[in-house]
This record gives sequence, structure tokens and C-alpha cells, in this order.
Amino acid sequence: MQHVEQYLTTNASRFEEELKTLLRIPSVSADSRHNGDTRRAAEFVLAQMQGMGLTAELVETAGHPIVHGQWLGAPGAPTALVYGHYDVQPPDPLDKWISPAFEPTVRDGCIYARGATDDKGQMFTHLKSIEAWMKTVGKLPVNVHVVIEGEEEVGSDNLDKYLDDHRTQLKSDVGVISDTSQFAPGVPAVTYGLRGIVAVEVTLRGPRQDLHSGVFGGSVANPVNQLARLIALLHDDQNRIQIPGFYDDIPPLSDVEREWFAKLPFDAAADLQKLGIDSGWGETGYTTLERRWARPTCDVNGIFGGYQGEGPKTIVPSFATAKITCRLVPNQDPVKIVKALEKFLRDKCPAGIKLEFTDGHGCPACAVDTKSPYIGAARKAIQAAFDAEPVMIREGGSIPVVATLRQILGIDTLLLGWGQNTDNLHSPNEHFRLADFHRGIRASAHLWQELAQVKRA
Amino acid sequence: MQHVEQYLTTNASRFEEELKTLLRIPSVSADSRHNGDTRRAAEFVLAQMQGMGLTAELVETAGHPIVHGQWLGAPGAPTALVYGHYDVQPPDPLDKWISPAFEPTVRDGCIYARGATDDKGQMFTHLKSIEAWMKTVGKLPVNVHVVIEGEEEVGSDNLDKYLDDHRTQLKSDVGVISDTSQFAPGVPAVTYGLRGIVAVEVTLRGPRQDLHSGVFGGSVANPVNQLARLIALLHDDQNRIQIPGFYDDIPPLSDVEREWFAKLPFDAAADLQKLGIDSGWGETGYTTLERRWARPTCDVNGIFGGYQGEGPKTIVPSFATAKITCRLVPNQDPVKIVKALEKFLRDKCPAGIKLEFTDGHGCPACAVDTKSPYIGAARKAIQAAFDAEPVMIREGGSIPVVATLRQILGIDTLLLGWGQNTDNLHSPNEHFRLADFHRGIRASAHLWQELAQVKRA
Repeated sequence: MQHVEQYLTTNASRFEEELKTLLRIPSVSADSRHNGDTRRAAEFVLAQMQGMGLTAELVETAGHPIVHGQWLGAPGAPTALVYGHYDVQPPDPLDKWISPAFEPTVRDGCIYARGATDDKGQMFTHLKSIEAWMKTVGKLPVNVHVVIEGEEEVGSDNLDKYLDDHRTQLKSDVGVISDTSQFAPGVPAVTYGLRGIVAVEVTLRGPRQDLHSGVFGGSVANPVNQLARLIALLHDDQNRIQIPGFYDDIPPLSDVEREWFAKLPFDAAADLQKLGIDSGWGETGYTTLERRWARPTCDVNGIFGGYQGEGPKTIVPSFATAKITCRLVPNQDPVKIVKALEKFLRDKCPAGIKLEFTDGHGCPACAVDTKSPYIGAARKAIQAAFDAEPVMIREGGSIPVVATLRQILGIDTLLLGWGQNTDNLHSPNEHFRLADFHRGIRASAHLWQELAQVKRA
Repeated sequence: MQHVEQYLTTNASRFEEELKTLLRIPSVSADSRHNGDTRRAAEFVLAQMQGMGLTAELVETAGHPIVHGQWLGAPGAPTALVYGHYDVQPPDPLDKWISPAFEPTVRDGCIYARGATDDKGQMFTHLKSIEAWMKTVGKLPVNVHVVIEGEEEVGSDNLDKYLDDHRTQLKSDVGVISDTSQFAPGVPAVTYGLRGIVAVEVTLRGPRQDLHSGVFGGSVANPVNQLARLIALLHDDQNRIQIPGFYDDIPPLSDVEREWFAKLPFDAAADLQKLGIDSGWGETGYTTLERRWARPTCDVNGIFGGYQGEGPKTIVPSFATAKITCRLVPNQDPVKIVKALEKFLRDKCPAGIKLEFTDGHGCPACAVDTKSPYIGAARKAIQAAFDAEPVMIREGGSIPVVATLRQILGIDTLLLGWGQNTDNLHSPNEHFRLADFHRGIRASAHLWQELAQVKRA
């Protein structure tokens, strides 16, 4: 490790310059005018992998290519699969950027550019740590697959097929992703759980066309009133979800986890104030972080029906639609939840109203056993690089690839975020603290060492 | 009456030709390109009034002029105020008309044109009946004011001011309006009640901006879910409105009225089927017609909030808005109802949500005492002309001028519809059965005679 550490120190400036080169490529996957740039970013990543001695290739897909690199020279040792992405969000609105989105600029110790943290900068830490091992020790203590895709920001349409087609080649023991955040500055974290999601759309149809509310009002079921009634029935006055069976498969939140969350440096009132809200809300008996990370939800994301212009219009609308998502927690089955939700709504729908139900995408929640030796390895690696014991956190959002790695390759994933949740991901002036960039590389270099100690199951 | 009846028979064809002349004028009040035409229609009505011996004038307003005619030569007799309008709805969509909207054409005994029934044709019946009296008897048995406006289809913005400014001049005993319908072909009606209305808009605001539903969902009140909850609370499971005091001032529906409604030739199931609905809905204990005519409502006319595009978007919306109208029945005070509705919503609104409430327009319900001698006079006049006893009905909609006549002049209004509710008002191929046109003129001629017998209060 001594030679590796030395290499990281000596080459720190070059790493920054290389990252800047990658950040200058406007690899906006959503914008086909940037298809050439997106491919250039893939080729840059490919060249990096080849330069450090991985066996690497560009894998063509129906969309943007996937870059795969591997080094399998540690027989008997665990195999880690590093996932990241080289594509970025569109930079709009351009006029809100202090320095241009694709001209990386360092200010106050941070590098500003689209993709600085999401995910070019974070992904690059693993490439550089592997390079350090290969260029000094001449080998890695573990086997690695590195899969860097170019469609994360547009739904990863071609990733599942790639993973499925290459499931034998990619056989691994644990996933590694740096696409999340530390809990706070100086508070590095291991994210051991994510919520899942199901998304559905519900339309209630009443009369064939909008009716005069004077002539007919009071004698026909109003689809907007009835949709409101159905939505209201989804929660009781403790804000518990009323869909039968919804909570059945959820194990209680452990005392250990509740203690971890409670100890975090988090001021719920201040957090709500930043959102412009004067009071919290949620399931009775849980704290704000528990509600966000460890309890399921049923939120209407959008609703529309009837007249939406200026002033009044005296109609009984012919239909109303709601878009609903449930955030799921580990052990809830998305298919079962969607079926239960549909049945609940159909059971409560009154005569005179037709209900249409569209099942959108879904993805189960993930949780890694916090006692897993891989988690232990990650904690040690972070402690060594950040000089602070990492906290154990979850996130409320979903990272579909984590569920995919579980489903297709059967592996858990270590979510090791080096950035901050204030780094303006998906917004103007995205940035990444350079100190965190270098600590991330160092933690990654330690991770290979620590993972090598883990006895494979 | 014999000479009057004879005159109506002799001049029937001329009346039709004169109506056609009026119908050829495209007096579309909503379209300023037709301002010249709209004024021409007013001048046509003025000339008619002057030709039959009324003292008449064009009253300029901030919008289209009002035509006023009067004959006050029957001292001691009651004074009737006839209201009508010479403006019409836009004719669009033009390509749906079998014969052009402003080229009146007779087919199957009906005259087809925009305004045929609403309201040129119906309004014209009163002008022709007055003409018949004046040209034969040389006088009317009652006093009359005739007020024909040109802004009914665009909200009657200038009518209230005119009535208020001329309240002394226009002092009358009873209003007469033919702008409704018979109950069915061969079933003439006196409409003795209308519902009122209040219109409000409610917006719930939560977070300053849309939030990521994964990161924050479950820990902040969702404005769409909460708006749905408030809307759902408006009704109980008997579909009774839950706003405290909402029903307090409503007298029970009388057995006589319930019997009238029950005896009408009305097939509720067939009516719902025409609307595309397989089942009725409404307040327990009331029939379809009672729900439409004699019971109040609380309908959401429109709702919107959050994401309304294609597919899902995983947000907690920052706000949601509903447009709500209550249809009111006689004795409910619009101001009191709006206040009670606002208080109800504010009381139920949870912490973490700000409620904005906008009070729109309102208008009380109207009901004429069915034992009133004016009603009796109208029933006799209709019986004489239609050779059928008129049924006593209400309407679920509002005709604001009826409330205005009550408020400003202190008079009740006789709503005497000569058309059918299948005459395509506001739609292509509007028409008016010529037999109904002539029966309307005859009923109006009898009405002056019958009203003369009424002892003024």
C-alpha cells in the first residue's frame, strides 16, 4: 500500500488534469446532437482502462456504447464489479452557470463542471486507484470488472440486456458504485439501503363528455371528486397506508438502525425550513430520516381533470387522472404492491365511474446486510482515507442498477459516495470538492486491499 | 282576444319572415369583428318596438347597447318586465351545420339558424304578441317594459348597472323570460325554480418547489394528496355535503313538488345512458330530478397539480389547485356558504400546507311561490295556447338575471320556455319548431290578458 499511496500523492495533479479532459467532453446522452461527444467520452474511458493494463473493449448497444474492462489475475480472491457512467445531464439552464458547464474550472477547492460529481468525477476515482495498483505493485489484490455505461441519465435502456447477455463473463462477488453522497462534509458514509418504487397511472371516467354542472350536477358521480375520494382513502389519520397487505412483508426497523439515524448530525426543522415548509408530515411513530429512508410512501406526483384555465367553468368533468408512485422498502414485492393498489382502488370505485389502471415501471428496494464482510471492508477503507469513521445510512431514492445487479448477477452493492448532496447534481454549477476526489481515490485503493481479505461465501 | 287571435293567424307567415330577417344578422357578442352586426340586431329590435307603438330607445353601455321599450297605458293594472337578448353564441364549428348558421332554413317544420331558439326566436314571441294587441285592440291590458340586451352570451356585464340606474323607471310587478325549454315535446312547462351558484378556487401549497419523491417522499405533506383529502371530506357516504350549516336554511322539499317531479315523463336510466353512464349517483333519499333541481351540490369542476405529461415523474408537487362550485337551492345565502366552505377547508388543512382561497362569482337560487297568482296566470295562458296543462318544473342551472331582477327590482320572474332542450342551444344546427314559435306568441298574447286579472299586491 505504501507504493500505492506514494503514487497517488505524486500523480494527484495529473489525475485532476485528466478529469478535466473528460469533463470537457459534452457527453449529454439525452441530446442526439451530442452523440459524437458521448462516444468520445466512452473512447476516453476505454483508453484509460487500456493504459492501466485492463483488458477492455467498447461494447456497442442499440444506444450509447458500454465500456467494459477486466483484470482477473487474483485467483481465489473476490471479484468486484465497479459500475459507473460517463454520460451527463443536459447543462440547461446555461445562463445560470458561473463558469461554462463544459469548461471545468477550479474555485475554492472545488472543480465546477457538468458531470464533476455525477458521475465522471466519482467514477474516475476507481479508475485511478486501479491504475495506482497496476503501475506500482503490478497487479490488484482482487479481481475486477469495470462497467461504465453511457445511458444512466436516460434510463439505462440497454444495460440490463448487456448484463444479462454477459452474466457468465461478469460473475462477481460484490458491486461497487460511487454515485451517491457522503452524509455531510466530513461525514463519509456507507449507504446500505435504497428504497424501491412502483409507478402507476389511474384514470376515472364518468360521463361521455363534460356536462353542464347546473343541469346535471348532483345526479352523476363526478370523476374528480371520486378520484379525490380514492386518493384520500390511501392514508389513515396516522398517515399509514391503507392498502391491504401493504406493510405485511416489511421487517421492523431495528433498534441499531434507529440509533444510527438518530445520532446523525441532522436538524429536521432546519431541513424543512430550507424546503419552505413550516412543519413535517408523515407516518406516526417515525422520525424524518426514518420516513425518508426506511418507510414506504404513496404519493400522487400529478393530477389533472376538468377545467384548468383562468376563472370558473361550470362543468362536471368527464374524467380525471392521477399519477401515483409508491416508494418501497426492502422485502416489499413491487408486483404484489401494484396488484394490491389496483385491487384497493377498484374495490372503492363507485358505480357510474369506470377505472383505468396503467402499471408503469417498478424496481424493488435494496438493503445490504450491515454485518456483511464487504461492508466491513468498505468501512475500513473509508476510515483510512477520510480519517473519520463512516456513518451507516440509507437513501430514499432508487438506483435501479443496484436491483439489476442483485437480480441478474445475484450480488449486493457497496454504495460509496465521495461527493456531497449539495454538489448541485442535475443543476447549474455542479461541482466536486477536489479533496473529496483524492480521498475517494485513496479509499478506493484501500478497498481493493480490504476486499482481498474477505473470505468468499 | 278574438281580434288578437285572428291577427296572429293572418300574420303568421310575416312573423316567420321577420324572424328570418333577425336571424340573418350575425350578432355574435363575443366577437368584436361582429360589433357592427350586433348593433344592427339592436336597431332591428328597436324598429320593431317603435313600429308597434312602444316608446323605445337604444341605451348605450360600455359594451353592446340595451334596447328598452315601454307601454304604460294601463293604470292600475300590473306591469310586466319582459327580458330577452338579441346576441347569439358563436356559430363554430361551422362545418357541422347542415345549412349555414346565419341563413335561416326551414326543414321538417323547424327553423334552423344560430339564435333560432336562444334567444331571438323566443324573445320575438313577446314582441309579436304585443304587436297583435296594439294593432287590433289599440292597447295592452297590462303595462310592459321590454328590456332586450346584447351581452347575455358574454356575461351580461352591463345589465346590472342599467337595471340599477333605471330602477325607478323600470318599476314592475313581475318578470317574464322565455329563454328556457318545455319539459318535452307536447309537455309545456312553467319553470318556477332555478339553482344558484358559488364558485371558488382553492390552492394548497407545500414545498417551495417540486421535490424529489425518493429523497423527501413520506416526510413532507404532499399538496395533491392533501387536496384530495379535503375534497373527499366534502361528502359523506350518503353523498351528503359535510360543510357545517350547509343545509341549515333549506326548507324540506314539499310533497306536492315531489309528486310533480315524480309524475313527469322522465326515464332516469335512459337519460343516464345517453350521457354514457351506467349508474346514477347522488344524495341518498332523492330522485334524479330532485337531485338536479332541488338539492345543492359541491362539484370539483377542475383540478391540477404536479406532473401532467406522459409517463411518470417522481416528484412531490409544490402545489395543487381545485376549482369548486356549489349549486345552491332557494334560501341558501351564497355569502354564508362561501364562508362556511372556506372555514371547513381551513379547519381541515394540515400543518405544512398553506391554503389559498379565492372567492369567485355567486348568485342565489330563485323560486317563485307556486301559489302566486302570476304563476296561475301563466298556467292559464299556456293551457290556452298549447292545449295542454303545463307541468311545474325547476331547472338545475342558474339564470343570473332572474336573481338580479329579484335583487334590484324586487320581482319574481315567470320562466316560460317555448323551445325544447333538444334544440341544440350553443351547438351546431340550433333550431326552433315553428309550431312552438306560434304557440309561444299565442301564449304570450294570452298572458297579457291573464296578468291583467291579477290583483297587485
